This record gives sequence, C-alpha cells and structure tokens, in this order.
Amino acid sequence: MADDGPAVLVAGASGYAGALAARLVDRHPGLRLAAVTSRSDAGRRLDDLYPHHRVALALEELDLDGPHGAVDAAIVAYPHAASAPVVAALRGRGAKVVDLSADFRLRDVATYEAWYAPHPEPELVARAVYGLPELYRDDLRHADLVAGPGCYPTATILALAPLAPYLEDVVVDAKSGVSGAGRAATDKTHFVTVDENVTPYGVGRHRHMPEIDQELAAQGARDVTVTFTPHLLPLDQGELVSCYATLREDVDVERLFAERYAGEPFVELAGRPPGVRDVRETNLCRIHAVRDERTGKAFVFAAIDNLWKGTSSQAIQSLNLMLGLDEAAGIAP
Amino acid sequence: MADDGPAVLVAGASGYAGALAARLVDRHPGLRLAAVTSRSDAGRRLDDLYPHHRVALALEELDLDGPHGAVDAAIVAYPHAASAPVVAALRGRGAKVVDLSADFRLRDVATYEAWYAPHPEPELVARAVYGLPELYRDDLRHADLVAGPGCYPTATILALAPLAPYLEDVVVDAKSGVSGAGRAATDKTHFVTVDENVTPYGVGRHRHMPEIDQELAAQGARDVTVTFTPHLLPLDQGELVSCYATLREDVDVERLFAERYAGEPFVELAGRPPGVRDVRETNLCRIHAVRDERTGKAFVFAAIDNLWKGTSSQAIQSLNLMLGLDEAAGIAP
Amino acid sequence: MADDGPAVLVAGASGYAGALAARLVDRHPGLRLAAVTSRSDAGRRLDDLYPHHRVALALEELDLDGPHGAVDAAIVAYPHAASAPVVAALRGRGAKVVDLSADFRLRDVATYEAWYAPHPEPELVARAVYGLPELYRDDLRHADLVAGPGCYPTATILALAPLAPYLEDVVVDAKSGVSGAGRAATDKTHFVTVDENVTPYGVGRHRHMPEIDQELAAQGARDVTVTFTPHLLPLDQGELVSCYATLREDVDVERLFAERYAGEPFVELAGRPPGVRDVRETNLCRIHAVRDERTGKAFVFAAIDNLWKGTSSQAIQSLNLMLGLDEAAGIAP
Amino acid sequence: MADDGPAVLVAGASGYAGALAARLVDRHPGLRLAAVTSRSDAGRRLDDLYPHHRVALALEELDLDGPHGAVDAAIVAYPHAASAPVVAALRGRGAKVVDLSADFRLRDVATYEAWYAPHPEPELVARAVYGLPELYRDDLRHADLVAGPGCYPTATILALAPLAPYLEDVVVDAKSGVSGAGRAATDKTHFVTVDENVTPYGVGRHRHMPEIDQELAAQGARDVTVTFTPHLLPLDQGELVSCYATLREDVDVERLFAERYAGEPFVELAGRPPGVRDVRETNLCRIHAVRDERTGKAFVFAAIDNLWKGTSSQAIQSLNLMLGLDEAAGIAP
Repeated sequence: MADDGPAVLVAGASGYAGALAARLVDRHPGLRLAAVTSRSDAGRRLDDLYPHHRVALALEELDLDGPHGAVDAAIVAYPHAASAPVVAALRGRGAKVVDLSADFRLRDVATYEAWYAPHPEPELVARAVYGLPELYRDDLRHADLVAGPGCYPTATILALAPLAPYLEDVVVDAKSGVSGAGRAATDKTHFVTVDENVTPYGVGRHRHMPEIDQELAAQGARDVTVTFTPHLLPLDQGELVSCYATLREDVDVERLFAERYAGEPFVELAGRPPGVRDVRETNLCRIHAVRDERTGKAFVFAAIDNLWKGTSSQAIQSLNLMLGLDEAAGIAP
Repeated sequence: MADDGPAVLVAGASGYAGALAARLVDRHPGLRLAAVTSRSDAGRRLDDLYPHHRVALALEELDLDGPHGAVDAAIVAYPHAASAPVVAALRGRGAKVVDLSADFRLRDVATYEAWYAPHPEPELVARAVYGLPELYRDDLRHADLVAGPGCYPTATILALAPLAPYLEDVVVDAKSGVSGAGRAATDKTHFVTVDENVTPYGVGRHRHMPEIDQELAAQGARDVTVTFTPHLLPLDQGELVSCYATLREDVDVERLFAERYAGEPFVELAGRPPGVRDVRETNLCRIHAVRDERTGKAFVFAAIDNLWKGTSSQAIQSLNLMLGLDEAAGIAP
Repeated sequence: MADDGPAVLVAGASGYAGALAARLVDRHPGLRLAAVTSRSDAGRRLDDLYPHHRVALALEELDLDGPHGAVDAAIVAYPHAASAPVVAALRGRGAKVVDLSADFRLRDVATYEAWYAPHPEPELVARAVYGLPELYRDDLRHADLVAGPGCYPTATILALAPLAPYLEDVVVDAKSGVSGAGRAATDKTHFVTVDENVTPYGVGRHRHMPEIDQELAAQGARDVTVTFTPHLLPLDQGELVSCYATLREDVDVERLFAERYAGEPFVELAGRPPGVRDVRETNLCRIHAVRDERTGKAFVFAAIDNLWKGTSSQAIQSLNLMLGLDEAAGIAP
Repeated sequence: MADDGPAVLVAGASGYAGALAARLVDRHPGLRLAAVTSRSDAGRRLDDLYPHHRVALALEELDLDGPHGAVDAAIVAYPHAASAPVVAALRGRGAKVVDLSADFRLRDVATYEAWYAPHPEPELVARAVYGLPELYRDDLRHADLVAGPGCYPTATILALAPLAPYLEDVVVDAKSGVSGAGRAATDKTHFVTVDENVTPYGVGRHRHMPEIDQELAAQGARDVTVTFTPHLLPLDQGELVSCYATLREDVDVERLFAERYAGEPFVELAGRPPGVRDVRETNLCRIHAVRDERTGKAFVFAAIDNLWKGTSSQAIQSLNLMLGLDEAAGIAP
C-alpha cells in the first residue's frame, strides 16, 4: 500500500466483490485504501470477515459528508438501483468512481428500466464509460465514472469482439462458480444445493443479455441472434464461456484474434481450450478460438476469474487508467 | 409403498432429515406414507423441493385434530424444544413416535436444560428409548417413543461401545459433511465458505457431548475423559469419527469388536480405515478398530452417512422394531 | 438377488461401469450374478475394490470354455475393439449379450473404423440392436445382442429425438462428471486437475458425434448440423446436455415432448431446468424443453447419471426387455 | 524477477512442489530463475504443464557439468533417496541448496534408514539445517544446505513447539488436501476416489512421525507420546492439524503462544479455529490455541497451505535467509 497515493474508498466492502477490491487497493503500490464501508456489517473488521484478504480495517457506515466524501476515488459495490445515488453523491464531491453494479452499464435508460428498475440517476448514464479496457482504453484514461462490466459480459464480449462484424448467430453456453452469485446465503448458494450438481438458470432471460448485445453492436455486430444461458457449477471462483458462432463469411478466426489482442497485457491466447484454473486469482482472460471444419462455425472458449477480471481486478485496471497509473499496477499476473 | 401397512406421518418434512425419512417411508414395503407436513413450506410439493426423493405428495400444515392425529406412527423432524409438544400430542392420540430432535435423548432433564432450553415435556423423557438398535434392540421392540440419536453420537458410540469399560481417556476428532448442518442457508453453509476448506467448530462445547457421555456410561465407562471436536468438510453427506483411546488395560481390541458386533446387520467391520463414500446412502456403520503398538492406544475409525444411519434410516430401523417388522425392511444395503 | 433367475456374467467388472452393472445384477430380483471377471484385477474381491457396491464375489479371469461360457446372459464392459471378440465368443455359446463398448453402436462399419479401429467382428454389427429402450423397445424384446449407447448420446438423443424431423442446426454443450472418464488414473482424472476447474475437451472431434448423427437420422433428422462439445466438471457422477436448436418450422416444443414421452417409465419432463443431482443414482433422464421466444430456438436440457442411465442401469433396462422381465425390474427409481 | 540477483536452479520442477518453487523464484524481486529441470518432462514448457504459474521456460535435462552446476543456489524437488546425490553434486560445485525431500530432515541416519532407504550421502546429513525459520532462523542465515520440512511436520511442530516442555501425550489428527499426495496419478489421487470422501491413511506408521518426534525433542519435549494420523480430504491445497495435548502442568496456553510467536512474520494467532482457506496460497501458519476447561487439555489447531508454507514458499523463506535477503521477499502475504 502506498502511503501517499490517491485515497480510495471501497463502499460495500462486505460482499465478495467489494472485499476483493479492498484487498487489491490495500496491496496496490500506487493507491491508499482510505476506508471500507458496509451497510450490513459496519463495526466488524474486514480481516475478521475475510481473513484471507488480510485487510486490517474496520468496516464503517458510509458518511459522505464526512471523510468518505473527500476521497480521490471510489469503488462502489452496491446492488443495482442502490448504487446510482451513492455514485452520484461521490461524483458530486469530485471523486472518480468505478461502479460495480449494473446501473451505468446500459447506455439506453429504457433498456435498463425494462430489465432492472426505475433508474435513480438517469442523467449520469451518458457520462459513464464501459470499463472493459480492451475495448475502451483511451476513453477510460479520461473517464470520471466507469461502469464495471458484468462478469459474463466481460468473458463473452472478449470472446466475441474480434468476430463481431461477421456474427450471424451465436450460442453462448456460460458456466460460473458460486461466488458469482454473491455472499447472500440462499437455497441456491447452499453447499448441498450446488455440490455434485450443475444447473442451467435464467434460461432465456438473464440480465446480462442486453449488455452483451449493446457491446457486440458497438463492435460492429448487426442483426446477430445471441443465445446466452448460464449454468451454476460446483466451484468457487471461475467462469467459462463456450461460444458457438455461425459466421457470415469465411474468415481466418485465429488470425483475427491474434491481431486484435496483440500486446494486450491481460488477454492470453491459448493453443488449447482453457480451464478456469488457468486464470484463477488473476486479471487474465484466456481464450481459445478456432474455426471448426466440420460445421464451419467458430468455436471460442474464454475463461476468467469472475471475481477478478470479471469484477474487482478489472475495476483496478480501469482505475489505474483513470488515475494515469500503469494499467497493470497491483494486478500483474 | 405398502397400501395397507401402518400409516406413518412425517412431520417437518421440508428439512433434509424429514424429507429423507418421507422418502424411506414412501418406498418402504411395509409402511404407508400418510402425510408430510411443514411449517415453512406447506403447499409446496415435496418432489418440487427435493426432486431426487420422488415423493409425490404436497406438504401440509400439521393438523393433529384432523387426519394427522389418526396415524399409527410418526417421525418428527422438528428443532429441539419445538419438537416435544408435537411428540406429546401425537403420543396422546396413540401414535408411536420416533423423534429426531434432541428433546428425548438425554435421560437427565437438568442436563438437557443446561445444554438446550427449558424442557417442554419433562415427564415424557423417562418414556423414551434411545434409538440406537445396536444397543437397545429389545427395548425398541416395546417402545412407543424413541429418541433418534444425534449423528455424531451414533458414530461415536458405535465406535466406542465395545471398549467402554476399558476407556480412560479418548479423543474423538469428528468430520462431517455439510448436510449435517441442515437446510438453513447461512454464512456457514454457503458454498463459498465450505468449498476448499476444513474448519473445526463447537470446540469444547458441542451439544452432542453429554449424549456421548450418557451412553458410554451406560456401556460401562467410568471416569472417562472424552474430548470431542467436530470439523466441517467440503462434502454433502458423510461423517467420520476418528477415535484415539487410552485404555485401562491391555485388551484385544479387534476381538472385542468382532464379538460385540457379530451378526449386527448394519455394522461392518473393515480391515482398513473406512471412507465415508463406503457407506454413502446406506444405514451402515463401517468400523476399523486396531490397537496401535507404538502408543498402546486403541484407534477406532467409524464412518456413517449422517443423514441415513446418522438420522433418517436409523429412524426407520427403530420404527421397524417398534412395529414388529423386519429390522432391515426398506433400508437394506 | 434371485437364486434361480437367468445366470448373468459381468465381464470387465473392475471398471466403474462393469462394477455398477455387477451390483445391479446382484441386487436384481429376477437375475443371478454368475460371475464377475477382470483382466487387471483377477483375484481381488469386488467388495474390496468397491466397498459401496457390496458385491461379495472375487474377480476371476475370463474363461469362456469353462463356466463363463455357460451363462444365460452377459454384460461386457471392455474397451472398444477388445470387446467385440469376447461378445462374439459369448454369442457363439448362446448367451444374450449387452455390450457397453462402442463396438456395435455404429451400423456402418466404415464409420466405426474411421473413428475407432479395424472392427474385429464386422459381420456381427448388423445383428445388434441399439440399446436405447425409449427408441427401440420392441426390437430389444427380440434382441440377442445389444449395443449399450454412449452416455453423451443417451442424453443427447433423448433430448433431441422429439424434435428430429424439425432440426436444422443444433448446438449441444455437454457437461460430465469425472466418472465418465473411467477408472484409469491419469493427469486428466487427477483430483488436482479437475477440482475447481471446468474444461472443454474433444473439441470438434468427440467420438460420440457419429453415434448422435446416426440416431437423429433414424428419428427423421435430415441435413442437420450438430455441434457437440463436452466439458469436464468437478463432480463424480452426472451429465447434463444443454441443446440449442434452430428449427425448420414453428412447432409446439412442449407438446412434442409430452406426446413422445407419455408413459415412458424413465423419462421425466420437468417444468424447470434439471440439475444432475435430481437424477443421481437413478435410471432416469430428466428433461426440460422450451421454445425460446426471443430467438425462436428450442432449448432442451437433459440430465442423466452417466454411470446409470448413461451406461449400466440402462444395460439392465435392455437386459430386462431381452429376457422378458419387467422393464423396470431392479432399477426402479 | 531480478535480472541480476543470485541465479537459482529448480531441479525437479515438473512436480507440484518444484513447479511452485519455480514460480516463486521467477517472480521474486531478488532472485533470478536460471533453469528448471525435469527427468520426466524435459522438453516441455513449464507454462504448458502449469499454465497458472506462468513460468515461460522449457524444462531441461539436469546437466550439472554444464550450466546447472554453476548456479548460486538450487531448490531440489526430487523423491527421497534420489535427491541426496543431486544435492551432494550441487554442494560440491558450491551451490547453496534447499532440499525438499526427506533426505536431510532426520539427524540420525539410522532412523532415516529405518523409515526410508539406505542413505546415499550420510556424511552430508550433519551439515544440513532444518528449514523451519521459526525454530532455526539464526542457523539458516549461515546454512549451505537446508532440509525443507515435511508439510505435516511444519504445521505440527509450529502447533506444538510452545508447549513442548509440558507435553505428556498428544493426539495429532491431521487433514490434508490432495496436492500433498503429489502429481502421480494413482487410484488414491483419482478424482472419483477423493470426491465426497474422507479417509484416514498411514495409520500408526506415517513417515512424518520421526521428524515430528525429533523436533519436539529439540524444543524440550521429554517422553511424550505422539499419536499422528493423517486424513485425505476432497480439496486441493490446504492442511489442518488438530492437536489434543495432555500437559504435565497447568500452563497459560494462550500466553505461551503469544510470547513464542511475537513478531513472527508468518505465524498468525487467531481468536477462533482457522480454516485452510484462511491461508490458501500464503506462507502463513494460522494457529488457534486454547486450554479446554472441561478436560484440562490444550487444543491447538494450525492451518497451512501444504504446498506453500508446507513446502515451496517455506523453501523461499529459508533461501532468503541463506542468501542474506529480506526473509519475506517474494512471499509476503
């Protein structure tokens, strides 16, 4: 932890994403962790709640009129709709913000409201940059407000961006570990429910679909049919998207990926299908893309750690860009 | 399922133990599943809640003045203190009852109240037989009220009963799968908490200790120091107790076990240490007992399925004895 | 176990599939387990190798000129190419045979040889019935030689058969537990490789593809492009196929499934996506099929236990039909 | 990785311990990874074998007469008896060596030979320092040859050292993840064997016992009976030892630990029992020690990552001391 770098607040640090963000800030060579806050666990020490993160701070109630309003930057890990007002207040006090909720991911407010809830801060939406540095690096260098992508969209968009102009129809079968479902203890996250099991969920109606559509369109996709179905797996951290794409023309798939991701510090092209262990606790997205001779389709498999590249370390990657630091500071593999 | 056997109610069938008991009754060749009840999930079908049990009945509100009071027998799977009044009401209407809670396990009401809560039906305690057929088979044949043992006591007592008169000091290091913690979704049962982990809990103060002490004394133990420490493991069903016993005299450990458990249908003596997979979804307790030459101690390892022999199939074993059926009916390995 | 039913040999009983087949025969009310054989583990007791199956027999060297040639029926669990000669020898001695290898699954010998090896008994291929009772029940009643389907084809074909005539393009993303990879200890089946991981394998070239193509064609599929990609999951038994199908016309998906599988004892249509736990250690295939309004595609999810319905209990289902027994004998849920 | 620090060879880098050691050297700010060698996998790239370690070097055949003999230091990860000759050769060429095998752990050669094999280099034994920095920090600063402790002894000795002079009888129930069994693919490490299971092994005869005895004696233990039984758990990395100690006198357990480990950078005293997740992928040993009022015993629970503090990161800790670097360089939590 730097003693004199920009002061960073992590709001909502008692959940998985916020707690990891706090750890990454805490160990970052160029940032200073100013405070961690929580609505549900204020008063508890973060290293009591998450010993393995070893962040020796107590969780506080958020106090934007006090010291929390004076930070240089903030990562906000609140649920959707609850996040936007906090983000707005932080922005109003001059802090640069990376928001981990869905509140600023969709450029079209009506689409947001159709999938989520009435938007509490619709006028702020246009100010946000989508926090996928591989697509928006230059914009992020000048951003004050960044919408951290969903974990599924992160892997899916990185898996499909090089093919976007050629996509006609794509089936995305996604598989995620349980940490993606968050810290809430429910029937769905109970060990006995998940162990020795695999289950599709959100069939035909997962909230990450409009986000994927939006970004593929921004990459040049036209009239593409995207089928997206997530599955819950018996593991903690890790996400794999298996993409099966019908293309409009006969492109050189491997070359498109090699060219697109040349020099990218956090995209790793692999000669064989990745496993999620290959990227566990890293900011990397590991991709294997091939053209299948038998069917003519492109097969793309992309693996990330849903809490790292899918959420919290990617937030640090964006924050590094926003603050003019080395993009890989604190999150190098 | 028998169409004309004794009618059995399972009260509290939405939890893991009750649901399994319902399944075992439902498939039992000599019993009829009359009804399943639940306080929290009344109205839901049991095969919606637990598809793998395939019990095609809806959960009902308990109505002892209606049909639920007219059953021949009942298995009650309520939390401690909540169970005793229901048991008393069922007994008052003539039903034979196996209670899966702690309410009737401890013969001394004061001990119960020191570890649990004020006892709602103290006068019934003396009527209960401890439902460990390997120790109380004859009593169970004449019992109207049976206290189903705890899962840890089941394995521990079976592991130590043959040695009881010789025990001086015994360390029991117990390991259990998560189903033993029940269906309640909490931080403790969240997949992410348990996965890739092992943690001791209830150190020095687990409620199963007085039950173990009581039954070892009944088997002839005198002034024995029992150390009991459970650990939570990343698996669903299965329990292993590793017992390290200092003995008062130099006995032939293997022979004591062979003699004690000869002919027992549900105790399996093994020539090597058991794994919990060896007994998964069975009513068996698999035991490996040896005298360690180096230390002079007896080492006993006993494996059960905590939901089966540790709870629900053992309840069927007792119920079979109470109703004059074949002890192994419906639960043969 | 019946004392006087047909005598059944299980050849190759030291692997997962053969050992489970032996257990199912051993507990079957109408069959007698005559012997279990193994090339690698002859002399060991099966209940030493697999305590949880509790088959109290020693594994023998196969001796077809001795007692093993005199059985009424046999289940052969040998690797492909090694199986066919044993099957031929058993058939030559009059035994009815269910073969679990790939040797008799493909009707076209040239296709077999392109994917596997030179066929040791090509003239027998035309005699074999494909052992999927939901498709070939009547043929199985008169069969002497049955080719047990692969586990992936079992789930995939049951998931797609009702839609076969309407299929234009289908992506099958399959997920399997590790038992599907067999008992061989390799880097791929090492706990540390699989745990906390998920990996695609056999991309574009899995041997189960021609089997799926063959059976979908037999169900009326024409010029359908099938994409099939399996993934290895960190669980033991269980297989889920997620099918995303583009259809040639606007059919009523749910009705097609309801009509096709009405009365099927081992197909379960579910109102929500199945998990593999729902069918663990059963002969059931649980299917959820819907038409997705957004994309127009049919989504079909089918779960089986790869060792049970995917292999060994399905072999019993076929054997029951071949021997004129109740189809569900010994494998009822 | 430092470009100009001491050059370090990792011999035997294709196993779990060697590969992790290579990664830790590779990322170390003060060391330079000179080469990685392997007998079984020479020619393969280490980042092909272990993508998640991201060591971009090819494995070489060991060539001590070539460049491998010219390194400043080496970590040797060979099996016992195979290691000592390589260590001797490296020492003969002037390299400082940390050996991860058992070859130099036991000061008494006869004891080594009773538990392992004839010792190939008995005269070197007296030169070795036992690589547990918390016990031998000063000796390690001057050591040329270090014997890396076993993973179980690391946790057990740290758990018991403060109590050593008072120990009368201690039961150590140890639990380890599968990575402790190494990379060899066997029945024992097959996913299907381990998953949903827990099994004791090496009962009464585990090779780590004499090592524990030796070091407890060095800490002042006299005539103590140590019972040590390991168990295999369904997880990858992590080890917990649960120690139940009868003491000779009534000491203040918590104070003994607080005093002994004050200022230790890699021992963490916890107010509640540790889980192995708390220390995953760290060089920390997390300990909870209490006196149990009911039995008078001391209960000590110690958690480590068996591959890190139990093996490879502890080797770096020793190497840092041997080379005059900061003890925590490259392995800070």
